Amino acid sequence: MSNIKPSLAKGTRDFSPIEMVKRNYIYDTIKKVFRKYGYAEIQTPSMENLSTLTGKYGDEGDKLIFKILNSGDYLSKVNPELLESRNSNGMIASISEKALRYDLTVPFARYVVMHQNEITLPFKRFQVQPVWRADRPQKGRYREFYQCDVDVVGSESLLNEAEFVLIYQEALSNLGLSDFSIKINNRKILTGIAEIIGKPELIIDMTVAIDKLDKIGFEGVTKELLSKGFTDADIEVLKPVILLEGSNEEKLAQLKQVLASSEAGLKGISEIETVFNYVASLAGSELRAAMQLELDITLARGLNYYTGCIFEVKTNEVAMGSIGGGGRYDDLTGMFGLKGLTGVGVSFGADRIYDVLLELDLFPESASAGTKVLISNFDATAEAYALPLLQALRQAEISAELYPASAKLKKQMSYADDKHIPYVILIGSDEMESGLLTLKDMKSGVQEKLGIDAIIDMLTESAL
Amino acid sequence: MSNIKPSLAKGTRDFSPIEMVKRNYIYDTIKKVFRKYGYAEIQTPSMENLSTLTGKYGDEGDKLIFKILNSGDYLSKVNPELLESRNSNGMIASISEKALRYDLTVPFARYVVMHQNEITLPFKRFQVQPVWRADRPQKGRYREFYQCDVDVVGSESLLNEAEFVLIYQEALSNLGLSDFSIKINNRKILTGIAEIIGKPELIIDMTVAIDKLDKIGFEGVTKELLSKGFTDADIEVLKPVILLEGSNEEKLAQLKQVLASSEAGLKGISEIETVFNYVASLAGSELRAAMQLELDITLARGLNYYTGCIFEVKTNEVAMGSIGGGGRYDDLTGMFGLKGLTGVGVSFGADRIYDVLLELDLFPESASAGTKVLISNFDATAEAYALPLLQALRQAEISAELYPASAKLKKQMSYADDKHIPYVILIGSDEMESGLLTLKDMKSGVQEKLGIDAIIDMLTESAL
Repeated sequence: MSNIKPSLAKGTRDFSPIEMVKRNYIYDTIKKVFRKYGYAEIQTPSMENLSTLTGKYGDEGDKLIFKILNSGDYLSKVNPELLESRNSNGMIASISEKALRYDLTVPFARYVVMHQNEITLPFKRFQVQPVWRADRPQKGRYREFYQCDVDVVGSESLLNEAEFVLIYQEALSNLGLSDFSIKINNRKILTGIAEIIGKPELIIDMTVAIDKLDKIGFEGVTKELLSKGFTDADIEVLKPVILLEGSNEEKLAQLKQVLASSEAGLKGISEIETVFNYVASLAGSELRAAMQLELDITLARGLNYYTGCIFEVKTNEVAMGSIGGGGRYDDLTGMFGLKGLTGVGVSFGADRIYDVLLELDLFPESASAGTKVLISNFDATAEAYALPLLQALRQAEISAELYPASAKLKKQMSYADDKHIPYVILIGSDEMESGLLTLKDMKSGVQEKLGIDAIIDMLTESAL
Repeated sequence: MSNIKPSLAKGTRDFSPIEMVKRNYIYDTIKKVFRKYGYAEIQTPSMENLSTLTGKYGDEGDKLIFKILNSGDYLSKVNPELLESRNSNGMIASISEKALRYDLTVPFARYVVMHQNEITLPFKRFQVQPVWRADRPQKGRYREFYQCDVDVVGSESLLNEAEFVLIYQEALSNLGLSDFSIKINNRKILTGIAEIIGKPELIIDMTVAIDKLDKIGFEGVTKELLSKGFTDADIEVLKPVILLEGSNEEKLAQLKQVLASSEAGLKGISEIETVFNYVASLAGSELRAAMQLELDITLARGLNYYTGCIFEVKTNEVAMGSIGGGGRYDDLTGMFGLKGLTGVGVSFGADRIYDVLLELDLFPESASAGTKVLISNFDATAEAYALPLLQALRQAEISAELYPASAKLKKQMSYADDKHIPYVILIGSDEMESGLLTLKDMKSGVQEKLGIDAIIDMLTESAL
């Protein structure tokens, strides 16, 4: 056994007990909402066949996939020429059959295709698992991080889109966020805009430029559009669309005029209207009024992928990128040979949500998460006295510990403090004689003498 | 995008919704008990530096570690001689810096050493995460599987050992198992036995042979011992130990006589007695009587690792290997340069427990796990009528779905059936007129006409 100073692999993290309580709080809150909307959890393996992943994320993505070295004599089948020319890239397929999951979408598509005879459509699933990317690590970007995806395949209904709006609203509200925007757009509207300008082939350049409005302003967008082959006349047509203002209804009314001659554009508008109507019916007037659901024509996201509605969620309380997003894709499983299955889904950026809740101090105290009460241990007699009490507490479903050795009061108190244990039961000779134990509230410092039953009642109540 | 028929990487599994509900039930039940005993969750990264893992699991283990290929031009730094000679093994260190977690113990030791200034001793942690091994896949053995470990470091108290006995007892009982044995032994007793025979150097051979008593009987054990260098006289001394019978107290009494001259042996006996006393005090007489806690001198486990008490748990209801095990190790963190930190821990074999519960039909119906009620959808009018009802159900924390398109009754019913949804609300023109909805119990087939409030009350009650 070597005696090295250990370190973490670059871009990875340990999660301490206190971080795990917070992370679990986020996942549990979100999963509970997913379940309430009829979504069921699945898990796929961390390792997929490399061939399942290759070619799904573009050339850049392929490079960021972590490949797993074959076991045994992995060089035995390598073409000698590749070996001699030190062709790292060319050799990969010969020495690596497996790779780590890069996202949850491709494995989900594989799952649907492989299990198509077992699952009933529409299939509503959520998945919360880590993914791995060989990105250069930097602040807030890790090589291992969790994705939190919820998707339905096999249903064209826009009710699904509306329910995702409600899922965002409910999950983020339940996490304590009060000021966040759910932005919605439709890829068909963007197609329509490119059509009426007469430059459908430039749709990607157009949306990439429009997407930057927030950062570079209208002037910047204009400059970029001109450099990509748009004319001043095109920009005149685009201007009212890019600078669209007012309520969702006002925006839609304006868009209907601009896009009157585009079938795709009108379809996109109609889809957005249907989603808005579903949201209004589901949410009721009060909740709908409280929601910040905004049509945002500058919202682009991964355009080569999405085909219908697209979503993005931003908090307005902290400077932070989007904390969620997603959309409709008409052909999820085509990459594995199962054509024509439509899907729509969104995801939550759990790591960013973690940072937001931390900054806004929104994590609850979650007293129930850790040990609720520590019993002191001053000598063998007190320890023996404490053992049945310890189990009585646990039988009442109270998380309890006995300090596992006789030690000085100070040491035991600092153990309780460090572990954020809210109560300590002190047992000395007085307590053993009277049966009244000293219960110390570690926050207020207040001490009370109580019997074990009264303590159990109190600690049970304080958990409610 | 290639158009291949997708498959799973060898030795890995997808978990469907119905499997996830069962798996979560097991993990949640076990974790709840861990927390009640004061253990807190941590997580470590899936990838560790290869140097952190190498040399910790023996030569065979090293081969079974999944190595991750370095990104980019991974061949650039490889020694030309290694490349020319196709030295797969020799090249690993040059082309792979990282590897997948092989167990939870070594990462935990690394965690303790790296975080030694933040954590308070004794440090009680549990960890439930997947591990990966490049084993040949076979029935019940996977390349990705979950471990479920609970350990404490920095406490010598045998109270910890006793609490692990109670944790096993409580967690397995909560899972519905009623007939299982918690076997305990102590490595010092085995040391003592080897000492009194005068062959301490043969302790490994001795325990490996004794460990097989169940399978090959006393005659087989004798044969193996003779072949390993033990004499007939040695076996005469060993015989009463190997064939030790009676209650724990009777066994201990006999062992005390046999091991009277071995300091280590007596220490081992005394440790076991202390654990038994702690268990008796904690459990109370009724629970203690119901427990099958057995001193089993043939229990060996990984002897080069453990130094004190060792545990193994077996169910007596199904033919299955051990469903849990663990023990005390005096030097957990020495491999990373932090000496003298004692640890004790156990683990649950969650995959085997899954198979046992399945075979014994012990999984609860967990009605609350999936969608509780489906609202039918026959046309646009009924759908519009249903939307506020759908949200009313969800506001009452009832997991509910509206079938997302107008469809035939049969199709919607089979959707509910396939998804194990216990109730369906049928909405036709009668229902819309009267406000009394038809609630169908999918199990009994019984239909009732009820208002939405009554339905909410009923479904809320049925979740209790």
